[in-house]
This record gives sequence, C-alpha cells and structure tokens, in this order.
Amino acid sequence: MNKSLISLAAALALASPAFAVGEEEEKPAPSPGEIVEKAAASDWVPIAPEDLMVMTLAPDAEGNPREVVIQLMPAPFSQGWIENIKTLTRSGYYDGLSVIRVQDNYVTQWGDPSGDEEGAKPLPEGLKVMGEDEYVSAITGDDLLARTRYPDPYAGWTALLGGWPTGLRMQTSHTLEYQAWPTHCYGMVGVARGMSPNTGDGSSLYTVIGHAPRQLDRNIALAGRVIEGMEHLSSLPRGKGTLGFYEDAEADKRTSILSVRIASDMPSGEQPQFEYLSTESEIFADYADARANRRDPFFIVPAGGVDICNIPVPIRRVKGE
Amino acid sequence: MNKSLISLAAALALASPAFAVGEEEEKPAPSPGEIVEKAAASDWVPIAPEDLMVMTLAPDAEGNPREVVIQLMPAPFSQGWIENIKTLTRSGYYDGLSVIRVQDNYVTQWGDPSGDEEGAKPLPEGLKVMGEDEYVSAITGDDLLARTRYPDPYAGWTALLGGWPTGLRMQTSHTLEYQAWPTHCYGMVGVARGMSPNTGDGSSLYTVIGHAPRQLDRNIALAGRVIEGMEHLSSLPRGKGTLGFYEDAEADKRTSILSVRIASDMPSGEQPQFEYLSTESEIFADYADARANRRDPFFIVPAGGVDICNIPVPIRRVKGE
Repeated sequence: MNKSLISLAAALALASPAFAVGEEEEKPAPSPGEIVEKAAASDWVPIAPEDLMVMTLAPDAEGNPREVVIQLMPAPFSQGWIENIKTLTRSGYYDGLSVIRVQDNYVTQWGDPSGDEEGAKPLPEGLKVMGEDEYVSAITGDDLLARTRYPDPYAGWTALLGGWPTGLRMQTSHTLEYQAWPTHCYGMVGVARGMSPNTGDGSSLYTVIGHAPRQLDRNIALAGRVIEGMEHLSSLPRGKGTLGFYEDAEADKRTSILSVRIASDMPSGEQPQFEYLSTESEIFADYADARANRRDPFFIVPAGGVDICNIPVPIRRVKGE
Repeated sequence: MNKSLISLAAALALASPAFAVGEEEEKPAPSPGEIVEKAAASDWVPIAPEDLMVMTLAPDAEGNPREVVIQLMPAPFSQGWIENIKTLTRSGYYDGLSVIRVQDNYVTQWGDPSGDEEGAKPLPEGLKVMGEDEYVSAITGDDLLARTRYPDPYAGWTALLGGWPTGLRMQTSHTLEYQAWPTHCYGMVGVARGMSPNTGDGSSLYTVIGHAPRQLDRNIALAGRVIEGMEHLSSLPRGKGTLGFYEDAEADKRTSILSVRIASDMPSGEQPQFEYLSTESEIFADYADARANRRDPFFIVPAGGVDICNIPVPIRRVKGE
C-alpha cells in the first residue's frame, strides 16, 4: 500500500479507529514489528561488505567483548568524506584511538584524545577536502510524487530513500529535481568538524545518542549509522567536561578502540552480513503506516502521524553472529 | 519577540540568512544558551517543593553518589496519577525497589523486580484508578492564538504551556477551547501500565532515554520529567531480556533505589530548589526561535523549524547542590 502525501489534515482524519477498517474486527491490528516479520526474503536488501565498518572496542569491565557495526552511506550522499573514512580505516589510523566525548541526549564522539596538539597521531595522506555545497545532493525524483513523504518542520518534507532518512526540498515547483540530504536521527554517524564551512576530514566521528538534533542537518556531514552494538556507545559514562568531553582527570573513562575494519577487507569467513528492509517495498509502507498509527492492542489512540526519525529502517544480521 | 503561528511555508521563508536581519552584520548571532544567560531574574519561575521528587540510587561502582531529581507536573495535567505517586512515595513504597528495564533508544523503567508475582511488595491503600479520558485536558486558550505554536505530525500543533511541552488540538474552529496533553520528549517521566485502558497505579515509572516516542502520547500517563541526574538513568547497561528487561541471570545489573522523597517533606535545609525559564517570557520566545534557526558561528544553514522535543525548557538549580 503506497500512501500518497500525508498532509496534517489527512493525518487528523487518520486518527481513528482502533482497528483497521476492512479487516476482521475481532483480529487485533499487527504491531510494526509483526508486520516486518511477514516480509518476504525479496523485500530485504543485502548491504555491500564495502559499506560495513566493524569497530572493536576494548572489552567492558566484566570482560565482555564490545563490537559496533556501522553501515556507511551509499551514493549519492557524502561520498567524499566516506572515501576519507575508508582511507583512515585502511591506514590503521583509528586503531588505538578512543571515545573522547559522551554528552547526554546528544552525541558520543571518538577520535584522538590529543586532538590537534603535540603528540597527535599523524593523518594518512590523500584525505579530501570538501566544500559546504556537498552537504546537499540533487536527485531527480520521477517516482517521488507517488511515494510517502512526511511533513517536517526542519526540511519541509522528508522521505525514506534507498534505505535512508532524508530531508527533501523541491528545487522549483516545475521540475522533478529535489535537493536531498540525510537527517540526524538516533544512531546516525557523522563527521566531527571545527568551525564552518569545512566538512571535517573524518579523523573524529560521532553518533547521535538522544533526541534527533536535526539542527545539524546540512551543517555536519553524515556518513552512516550504527546498525549493531549501539548500546556500547549510548550507555557509556557521560563526560564531565564542556560538551561532555572527558577531562584529563577522568581519562580512564575513555573507551579504547582496538581496531576498525571495512568488512570487505576481512577474511570472507569473518565478514558480517546484514540486510535492510527495502524502503521502496510495499511491506515497508505498511510498517511506516503502523508507526504512524499504532493500533495494536496496547494502544488507545493512534497518533495519525510520525516523524522521520521515528521510522527506523529495519535491519537484520544474516551471518556471522 | 513573540512569533505568530509558524507554518511550513513561513518556516521555508526563514531558512536564511546566516545573521539576523537588522542586527549588526559583524556581531555573530547568539546561541540558544547565550540567549538564556541574558534572562532576567524575573524570567525564572521557582518550582514548588511539593512538585520535586528526589530519587537516590545506590552509589555507582566507584562509590559516587547518584541522585535523580524529577519535577512532577502541575495542574491541569495528570493530577490523579501524580497523587498516586506522592502516596507511594510517602508510604515508602519505592524505597528498596530498583531499575528493572533499560531498552536502548526507548526507556529506563523502575519498580518492583517481582512484578505482580508472589513476594511483590504490597501497595499502600488509597491509590486512584483513572480512566483513559484523563489523558487529555480541556484548556481555554484566550492567549493561545498569539503564542508560538509548532506544526507537528503527531498532534497537529504543539506549544510550550506553563513550562511543559504539549500537544494541542482545537475542539472546534469556533471556540477557544483546546484539547491539550503533555508530549513524550527525552527525559519525560511516565507511569508504566499493562494493557489499555487503565492508566497504571504509579507503582512502576519510566523515563525516555532516546528519540521521542511520541506514539505514546495520550496512550500512557506522563507525570513529570527528570531535571537533574538524567545521566544516572540514561547510561545504565541495557537489559538483555525482551523490551530491555533485565533477566534473572543479570539481576546484578538492577540499580537499587535507596529512597524517594518529595522535597517539601525533607528538612528545609536539605530541600533542593530549582527554577525554570518561563515559557511565557519574551526571552523564551527568543530562545525557541534560536533553536529553530541556529545562526551562531558553527552553523551554515539554519533549519527554519524545530520540533517540540528539541526545545528543552531551561531549568537551573538555585540551592542545595
């Protein structure tokens, strides 16, 4: 079921009833998770091993291993800084760095605790410098008019495109060309930077651990999202310094990064494999509709609307647990 | 500066420039935090000690004390279950219970690990039972038309009312009577419940530790928000059981609650005192506008809009650190 454009007025009209019209009244409506369970194998899209990054943190206090898997963003978004991240990964730059900042309801950031100071780890050669115009991609959306879009106070409109949450703005009302950019949802990974407009070199990355800080959209380069092991970054002790940086007096709280690898560089038997639910599938549209209109038995009143960061794209591991 | 209604179209028109029009071009625009620093003493509203709840958790692994302060919601919202929470607190019901559930990007919940099973702690007498119609309050909004409201995919409209984020829906277009209800933002505290429509007795509470789960609005009773010590709840280890409940095998991860007290019941010298920035003040309108339009030097593109959960109400401790 592909819904057309949801306006606020339409959203209000959707606010009832407790059970979906046309279904047996006796059968409770499925939850979003129950809908996803019904997806066919063909609704799932494999993630290329070249787009998977495995970050191994030092074990926790009880000796349990901590592994974080990040999906890097495919074209057309942010290819310059993703190339940097692969260059940094393959040079071994990240190995031995650590988590340097945890700010509650905002971000966890990792990089070189020495920053730019003396003793900082040297960067590999070949890193790209990108301009601020690269934050936004132009896409032609011949199928965008038929696709579910969500009204959004930050971007005007949002949609799930090729598996990613994106802000959308039509270039003019007479073309099918859109400006599109990824949005700062929970678990998204971005490239830390200094003052504008440079986009950062990729030597320090962060992930969102709170309510979506959408004011960062188009202001910081997004590079991917955490798809497994998010709890290893979100449950770390918050830093006591400005912006949640760990102060030197609490340096022992900095979690060490043992290694970062691109999955395609790992021995094939060790490569993790993941799939995401196609955001272009009918089952995804049903899932998103259920996120906007919870009618499963726990709920009394379906909201009739949803924001883009409250429709997380279902992702599952298919190999290498 | 009181802005009138922000429509999506108006939001687009606000998307530039990098510096506020009419200000000196040379002076960078202030950040939201810098605006709040300029608030006058009279812009801050004291929180009644009767509305402050102090929850003392067991010290952390290093012996550091962990105290969480919760502001309970004033009228007109949710008075029945807040009365229950005070009854439970004063009977000592919460003392000795523990954190029983931490689900990443969702909630931390505390209560009796025994649940309803044998060995569960007995509830005090006098708890109220509330119907589902109490989730929503009717308010008359003679000043609501002149106040900043935000378009919202869940509620239609939202606004900050009396210090709280609320969803709003006009009863008819010919009256000034609104339906209003608090919204599930980061740090908000609610009353856990079983299947609908009962509103829960207050014996188990939770707080939001991820992106706002706004689908819960009008479906679970909100009772307040964490105003200090949030990191003691958000950084706890996630539970491995269904919905993030700690399984029996990881029972040692359950953080104990040593005591819960209403501030007005504490010796006056020990009572913490807090103030919030009046959401009806001009400085709050400036702050909210800056949240929607970041023009301070780090930013390249102001979003031109914001969602209600990304305008946290500034709160400060004034005594008893």
